[in-house]
Amino acid sequence: VRLGQIGEFGLIDRMRNAVRMKSNHVILGIGDDAAVLRSSPESDIVLTTDALVDGVHFDLNYTPLESLGWKALAVNLSDIAAMGGTPLGATVSIAVPDHWCVEDLDMLYSGLARCARAYRCPIIGGDTTRSSGGCFLSIAVAGETAAGTHVPRSGAKAGDVLCITGEMGGAKTGFEILLERTDTKRYKKSIRRFLEPIPLLKTSHKLIRQFPVSSMIDISDGLASEIKHICEQSGVGCLIEEERIPVSSEAIRWAEEKKKPLSPYIFESGEEYELLFTVPRKALERNQAFSRLVRSVSIRIIGEITSPSQGIRIRSKGETMPLEFDGWDHFSKAFS
Amino acid sequence: VRLGQIGEFGLIDRMRNAVRMKSNHVILGIGDDAAVLRSSPESDIVLTTDALVDGVHFDLNYTPLESLGWKALAVNLSDIAAMGGTPLGATVSIAVPDHWCVEDLDMLYSGLARCARAYRCPIIGGDTTRSSGGCFLSIAVAGETAAGTHVPRSGAKAGDVLCITGEMGGAKTGFEILLERTDTKRYKKSIRRFLEPIPLLKTSHKLIRQFPVSSMIDISDGLASEIKHICEQSGVGCLIEEERIPVSSEAIRWAEEKKKPLSPYIFESGEEYELLFTVPRKALERNQAFSRLVRSVSIRIIGEITSPSQGIRIRSKGETMPLEFDGWDHFSKAFS
Repeated sequence: VRLGQIGEFGLIDRMRNAVRMKSNHVILGIGDDAAVLRSSPESDIVLTTDALVDGVHFDLNYTPLESLGWKALAVNLSDIAAMGGTPLGATVSIAVPDHWCVEDLDMLYSGLARCARAYRCPIIGGDTTRSSGGCFLSIAVAGETAAGTHVPRSGAKAGDVLCITGEMGGAKTGFEILLERTDTKRYKKSIRRFLEPIPLLKTSHKLIRQFPVSSMIDISDGLASEIKHICEQSGVGCLIEEERIPVSSEAIRWAEEKKKPLSPYIFESGEEYELLFTVPRKALERNQAFSRLVRSVSIRIIGEITSPSQGIRIRSKGETMPLEFDGWDHFSKAFS
Repeated sequence: VRLGQIGEFGLIDRMRNAVRMKSNHVILGIGDDAAVLRSSPESDIVLTTDALVDGVHFDLNYTPLESLGWKALAVNLSDIAAMGGTPLGATVSIAVPDHWCVEDLDMLYSGLARCARAYRCPIIGGDTTRSSGGCFLSIAVAGETAAGTHVPRSGAKAGDVLCITGEMGGAKTGFEILLERTDTKRYKKSIRRFLEPIPLLKTSHKLIRQFPVSSMIDISDGLASEIKHICEQSGVGCLIEEERIPVSSEAIRWAEEKKKPLSPYIFESGEEYELLFTVPRKALERNQAFSRLVRSVSIRIIGEITSPSQGIRIRSKGETMPLEFDGWDHFSKAFS
């Protein structure tokens, strides 16, 4: 069986089955943004890992090494944010192509260090080896939450509202601009978003402090794909209101210029690293704090959670239909 | 500057300087077998990562995928053992070459799972991606120790004795037999040692429970290199008694057959994953427990820690001379 036939999520399932075992420490295992381990009565450990592979996740023709260092750590911190955790420290495994020189590595480290300091996540260890192929960068971050307070993907309930932070489409726009090497000045915001995403640790903590957030995930594969994860893992359906989803103005301009439909920029733009989360509707009604948050960190309600029998639907221009999923899968899609 | 000119340890230093930052959580950062983080008053988190790269650390021509899975986890567990920690869970990042099929991954997972169960370290997360080059496997393990009880590399003091578990030379022998594809039946033990090393978690815990172990490291780069790490990081010298170092009988036989000197099998055999540690001499005198341990887990005193001014010396056949270091460095040595 070829890998492309079962895809990335198929492989994750397969691994989960292969390594299944009992453990008293594991609160949450494979299948969320990060795993949760209990080691002490007061606090839980949150552990996550994400790899960036040359020719799959990045292309050094348009990715500055400093940005690569930043991004490799930032995407892991985003996973910690999606669990409601606080980072404690990171380890960095890097395989370096033979033809690199020390100054290349210095630039990569410099981006890593800048991100580590910005989010107070010290680099505490690593492994630097030679690569016979391209560059491979894998980071693991250990974080913590107060015991039992992590936010899983699986807690959404009918009656919750579905919310996102920020706007969609910027990352995909930035990626396409970099590929075409055009107009870089007019799309600065999108390029920056793609090259050096911001992990929303503070936003996540603010949300959790003020609301009973029932589920959360970061948008790394695309909005549609993440909505599907929350619904499947929570055993619920949902109804999305397309018009309510904020879209990046640069994405709108770019789609118009290229005469492309906007919808893929909304639903299939991976690497946005915004947060998608659910909150019971009751907790929001007449809630002053939410109104303030809506303004201060630009949070929007984009739909509601329904019973599972209703499936995952979207309402657009008055019409309601099933939402189509087309997230990023490295095994079933070629790198373009 | 080419990478080979500053070598793996030079690169580690360079990274340490680049990412230096203050943190109240970090008890021990870059430069030991694992990092130590304080998150609760009772227990510390031990975090380590180790990567295995196709064409650098392994060759799939003679490495069964099941053994590769085992080894990738085992080498990380060995780092946890060297800190005196207990594993809680592991994450696995793997980049898979396009031409692999699902059954290949299944075999790798099966070896991983076997090791995970044997040492009670559940696989709790990971990242599976496509590789445009060879296979790259990076594992991170989070473990724990009671607060403040980890064993660093830096605690050796003049007057301590230097001890090792097990015998040297088997891993290098196994590696060479596999390369030559010869005599595999007569060197089964060495081949197994090379392909599926045993992380000495139980031995480490036994040692720590019974003795005031002052420093510890696992033998992954070779005995001479690890001795150097302990001495440099502790700011001490040492005197090794070559005749006291137990050597694998298969290594002795193989060196004789190939008419090679035995010494590289003793001092430069990486990937042995035995433990090298120091204990105050006083703690051992007339200690019944130590005599029992010497028998039950084959521990040997191989030398003593001295003042730093005496350097790192070895006594062999009545002569005392400086110990030469020639550990495995992926950047300054080619893969043979």
